[in-house]
Amino acid sequence: MKDFMKLDVKELNEYKVQLEIKYNEFKGKKLNYDMSRGKPCPEQLDLSAGLLDCLDSYKASDGTDCRNYGGLDGIPEAKQLFAEILEVSPKEVIVGGSSSLNMMYDTITRALNLGVYGSDVPWGKLPVIKFLCPSPGYDRHFAICQQFGIEMIVVDMKSDGPDMDVVEKLVAEDESIKGIWCVPKYSNPDGITYSDEIVDRFARMNTKAKDFRIFWDNAYTVHHLYDKGDSLKNIMTACKEAGNPDRVFIYGSTSKISFSSAGIAAMAASENNISLIKKQMSIQTIGPDKINQLRHVKFFKNLSNIEEHMKKHAAIIRPKFEAVLDILESQLGGKNIAWWNKPNGGYFISLFVLDGCAREIIGMAAQAGVTLTPAGSTYPYGRDLRDRNIRLAPTYPSLEELKSAIEVLCICVQLASIGKILAENS
Amino acid sequence: MKDFMKLDVKELNEYKVQLEIKYNEFKGKKLNYDMSRGKPCPEQLDLSAGLLDCLDSYKASDGTDCRNYGGLDGIPEAKQLFAEILEVSPKEVIVGGSSSLNMMYDTITRALNLGVYGSDVPWGKLPVIKFLCPSPGYDRHFAICQQFGIEMIVVDMKSDGPDMDVVEKLVAEDESIKGIWCVPKYSNPDGITYSDEIVDRFARMNTKAKDFRIFWDNAYTVHHLYDKGDSLKNIMTACKEAGNPDRVFIYGSTSKISFSSAGIAAMAASENNISLIKKQMSIQTIGPDKINQLRHVKFFKNLSNIEEHMKKHAAIIRPKFEAVLDILESQLGGKNIAWWNKPNGGYFISLFVLDGCAREIIGMAAQAGVTLTPAGSTYPYGRDLRDRNIRLAPTYPSLEELKSAIEVLCICVQLASIGKILAENS
Repeated sequence: MKDFMKLDVKELNEYKVQLEIKYNEFKGKKLNYDMSRGKPCPEQLDLSAGLLDCLDSYKASDGTDCRNYGGLDGIPEAKQLFAEILEVSPKEVIVGGSSSLNMMYDTITRALNLGVYGSDVPWGKLPVIKFLCPSPGYDRHFAICQQFGIEMIVVDMKSDGPDMDVVEKLVAEDESIKGIWCVPKYSNPDGITYSDEIVDRFARMNTKAKDFRIFWDNAYTVHHLYDKGDSLKNIMTACKEAGNPDRVFIYGSTSKISFSSAGIAAMAASENNISLIKKQMSIQTIGPDKINQLRHVKFFKNLSNIEEHMKKHAAIIRPKFEAVLDILESQLGGKNIAWWNKPNGGYFISLFVLDGCAREIIGMAAQAGVTLTPAGSTYPYGRDLRDRNIRLAPTYPSLEELKSAIEVLCICVQLASIGKILAENS
Repeated sequence: MKDFMKLDVKELNEYKVQLEIKYNEFKGKKLNYDMSRGKPCPEQLDLSAGLLDCLDSYKASDGTDCRNYGGLDGIPEAKQLFAEILEVSPKEVIVGGSSSLNMMYDTITRALNLGVYGSDVPWGKLPVIKFLCPSPGYDRHFAICQQFGIEMIVVDMKSDGPDMDVVEKLVAEDESIKGIWCVPKYSNPDGITYSDEIVDRFARMNTKAKDFRIFWDNAYTVHHLYDKGDSLKNIMTACKEAGNPDRVFIYGSTSKISFSSAGIAAMAASENNISLIKKQMSIQTIGPDKINQLRHVKFFKNLSNIEEHMKKHAAIIRPKFEAVLDILESQLGGKNIAWWNKPNGGYFISLFVLDGCAREIIGMAAQAGVTLTPAGSTYPYGRDLRDRNIRLAPTYPSLEELKSAIEVLCICVQLASIGKILAENS
């Protein structure tokens, strides 16, 4: 297909008429498709049906009755399982409830109210604190900062991770920068896996704040779409080797392995960090749901089985990702109006359109019954200054729904792009 | 048995020798009994075995797939069940994860960082905030205040609830008093149920702080020991009638109905409160474990079944409470050295000994292999100024263990009392 930038006004207007006809046809179909969130589809959830009746005992490996109180940091075998998943020692793991987002949020509230290991004062006692936010990124990370008035500084994402020249400069200069949000593997939404060099630079960089923390949301560590997945350098090892062992908080969960609502979540950090966090947490709760931890360990047993399980997920969602990519290529390829990545894993495809068009496109798609992630969501404060990023979540809709939704999207992208080009030419 | 206060020094010394022989006999038995926490025993947990295989569908009543993300405030039928338990409307309920303590803690952190409905500023922005702590009370409530530097003011417990003359006076005068901790039914540890008058005075009292909150931990609302249980006046209705509808946060859970680790917890409050809390919570989590909520609703169905279920709990633990009371009466009755209540429900018996003796008694019992709740635990900052309260948790040990443990305790009470009387007479 032709480069839109090389079409003349007449050609653009003719093409626009055709697109409007198609758009109105879709509108007439009263579609009702939701691709706004990274949710597993029912077929994926069915893969873990066995989780619900796999318990043959209430006892953890250390004899704990999982039905009763206690076990603040999780049962030993659940810590072992997450140690494998997150590539740390079981002593560096706390297994919590069903939500890793909740564990991240609670880490922030503890830091604000009580401080982290090495803090002179709780973060909340300081006049200003700031977080670096590689963007586009995960809206729920940014929302936590926004709720607490933590200033967010946008750092651009490059093809191998955040722009580390900027990160290094800022954290070295500004003591009020206390943290950075990272989704280092199959990043949300770009699907980028950080290079070894980026991981090393994170581990080694000098930070003005001595209680600076990397929030390493390793949400998609085993979530490959293809047999040969990306690999991510071990940040915990890198931090230890760099002499900054307490720098990183790592998070993970089975929310997109077993059940999104009823999985188990964990965090990992140095033993210094874990020791303080457990002390702080002991006031918040007596312990997590150990029965659900036991259920997960009985069902999955080890990382190797989880990897096999994830191949079944991939078999369900890979065709969806490929359908989206095929339609984007066939409808938008070569037109010079949109760019996207081809992730090897994770839950999203990140679509970039002409500057100033994303919000309009998302609105047009909504009018045709296709709900996309709201414009701006992938940036701090919901402000995509160039108004050009659209996060696509292909997993939840059926393949047929998905194809229709992406066709609608492609029509909207083209209509908005033509509108912009015509306006600029007039 | 004779009043110790009427025995002469010789009699006391003779009796002391006999007690020391018995104490040393127990010591030789190398007992290892733990009555420190209010934990259900395995037989109680067995009552809910059916909870683990009762699911026949993943769908909530509104069609929600409970395996997937969403449903911040719980599934409709779980809200309905807790509405029955807590005597409120389902619109006034948020059903959370497995821990009501966690929900209370999170309510406090939200209040500190963000404020409650009606707050001019987040509580944490104020120079000083204070909570009233009816005491003896629940150590984990007090620990939350202590962690956040919330000043605690002791209010005495009377036979029908907190000393309301003091409560009313303090809250009317001091704007920095933002809340009060209450376990209004079968209170921890006294087993007292607040009278209707007390509930009404709570609802009606004038508070200087316009965003004052009662933290109404209704942990034992269906936890009767006898067919005829205590009844507690509905605080939500009373607050509405008094024109203070937003005053109360109510908490409950199934931790001592189903499984302590894997139950479901809920909070209730006015719709104004719930609406703000849901908005605040939406940043913390996508939602609770809905599968476990569904499991509980399928298993228990309604309050009437829960009441039947609690009779089975009572049948297991009532003999334990009665054994404790019988031994206390036979060993300490009439001696004028110890006083205790006879609760109609809940998890504790509260023992008062001579001033200055509780810590010594608890230490002596520990040396004989009987672990009791640490001295001072039932008061703010762990400081029982009169050093006289001992919390007994009869549910977890077997009946035989319990009898031995209480015999040891009674020997320790007598030895410490004789020691005190002799010291005062010398």
